[in-house]
Amino acid sequence: MSDNKKILLSHGGGGEEMQSLIGGLFFKHFGNEILDKMEDSATLDVKGKIAFTTDSFTVTPLFFNGGDIGKIAIAGTVNDLVSAGARPLYISCGFIIEEGFLYKDLEQIVLSMKAELEKSGAKIVAGDTKVVPKGKADGIFINTSGIGEIICGDISSHNLNEGDAIIISNEVGNHGACILANREELRVSGDLKSDCASLFAPVSALFENGIKPKALRDATRGGLSAVLNEWALASNVGIEVNESDILVSNEVRGLCEIFGFEPYELANEGTMAICVKQEDAEKALEILREFDECKKANIIGKVLNSYKQRVILKSPWGTSRFLEPPKGELLPRIC
Amino acid sequence: MSDNKKILLSHGGGGEEMQSLIGGLFFKHFGNEILDKMEDSATLDVKGKIAFTTDSFTVTPLFFNGGDIGKIAIAGTVNDLVSAGARPLYISCGFIIEEGFLYKDLEQIVLSMKAELEKSGAKIVAGDTKVVPKGKADGIFINTSGIGEIICGDISSHNLNEGDAIIISNEVGNHGACILANREELRVSGDLKSDCASLFAPVSALFENGIKPKALRDATRGGLSAVLNEWALASNVGIEVNESDILVSNEVRGLCEIFGFEPYELANEGTMAICVKQEDAEKALEILREFDECKKANIIGKVLNSYKQRVILKSPWGTSRFLEPPKGELLPRIC
Repeated sequence: MSDNKKILLSHGGGGEEMQSLIGGLFFKHFGNEILDKMEDSATLDVKGKIAFTTDSFTVTPLFFNGGDIGKIAIAGTVNDLVSAGARPLYISCGFIIEEGFLYKDLEQIVLSMKAELEKSGAKIVAGDTKVVPKGKADGIFINTSGIGEIICGDISSHNLNEGDAIIISNEVGNHGACILANREELRVSGDLKSDCASLFAPVSALFENGIKPKALRDATRGGLSAVLNEWALASNVGIEVNESDILVSNEVRGLCEIFGFEPYELANEGTMAICVKQEDAEKALEILREFDECKKANIIGKVLNSYKQRVILKSPWGTSRFLEPPKGELLPRIC
Repeated sequence: MSDNKKILLSHGGGGEEMQSLIGGLFFKHFGNEILDKMEDSATLDVKGKIAFTTDSFTVTPLFFNGGDIGKIAIAGTVNDLVSAGARPLYISCGFIIEEGFLYKDLEQIVLSMKAELEKSGAKIVAGDTKVVPKGKADGIFINTSGIGEIICGDISSHNLNEGDAIIISNEVGNHGACILANREELRVSGDLKSDCASLFAPVSALFENGIKPKALRDATRGGLSAVLNEWALASNVGIEVNESDILVSNEVRGLCEIFGFEPYELANEGTMAICVKQEDAEKALEILREFDECKKANIIGKVLNSYKQRVILKSPWGTSRFLEPPKGELLPRIC
């Protein structure tokens, strides 16, 4: 196949060309007994409570250090399901492709999705492809919606109580900083790698070891700061975190200084904020750190009964300030 | 609120502005006990077999005679679920909005979605909003994914047998022709109205009256021709349809003559192809015609044991030709 084969409007028209794209690319790599039935809706057997989530991905650049739009589309939806205490089972995939998009880039994206699906065992069971004329979209946008079977119930941002521990599963800010550096073509970009990863394995290891998180949240847009503020608001509590316990790489810190970003507001794509009972915190940390994507997990703070609906950031020098909810023009199109 | 208030990049950034858009518009109109929990995933109780489907909508113009992108996004996903014999229950909604899009247009779209949801009782339970810089998308794209409870099982394009009747629930080609006319700003456009409609009511009336369709399909992209060809292929049968029984309005016929389109290939957005046992055909027709959106329903042909995998179109003059699967550049962005 020629390297400059392009996606045409006819690939989204509902006719023979679309069938050939679907068969030759999507079914070839995503194929499974449900998808292969090629009905407009997948028929699924589910039991009990399920989690259901959706995300559209518009990240630019499409390919970045540590991932691409395909990997992030799967990891993002998997992590949303995991945040609800669910085992990711079924994912739908809607492509909006700009006319002229390179077939080989689409194939690379599809292969990334396939590889990422294998990490949680989720399957693509429904799809849709639209092609819009050149200039009417920016390369490719992907929507993934997912269904998971809830295996650990009652995880919610409303559950925080005084004394609970707050854990973050990784350094923060890597994804946002990586995208920013890639976009600005900074020399530092080579040292920055997105944390983009599916977190079903480490989080389900918590469940299997009898740890029931009270709240779980993928710290994507708005970063750690958005999650903690949402939790403080939803549970009507204060949250106190220690700056020295929140790991930020030197590269991310440097980039934040140059551009005036707050690392706690930068997006992550494979980093989970986890609230557990204080007595579970050390054990949770030990379990998480056994996984590559969580080996920098750390306890960063605790829930207070004071400073309600606020997040307090304590510096190593004993001072403290409010960590405000992010606002204004954050870095756009990071996911 | 000012009439020219616009959507800004910050409305998709994950910060305060996004929360205000979500609260002030989406939750205001879509709110329900599940969505109001504001978790990243909705937690749902489902029983038995479910149908799951996804569709992205990129229609242009966004507002057309008979509907808009919001109405079509709900009706399209509802109809995909109905095609699987399901009662639509839960819908997710992912918006990709171009910076500078008018708030009042977004509100109108949201209100259309709300009105259309009421026709089937489905609820929006999960959402996502992305804003991309001006010029990186075309106004607004919407993805809707849906979950339905299967209330009439084993509906499939693989089920057709010799002698079965083929019904179409309406005139064909109205949506595609309406979009074409609106886009070309033709004078005829006022007489053309999209068939865009949710078909849960008429189809569930079939189920309730003991009629179990063998196959059901919303004749969207690729039109009636695409559906019949897919069925003929999937069931390894021939399908014979009578040109004089397939209703096409004079306006649609005229437009097709001007532009060289085949009315059977034009998209419909509220028109279902239905295959039933021959003995159920008349009763099915009677039931369907009780509903406004199906009052022009007609039996258009039958399944053959010859001409396998082909569709035969018989003219009123006794001649016949193959109705080929659509190919090439069909009308883009009709849904």
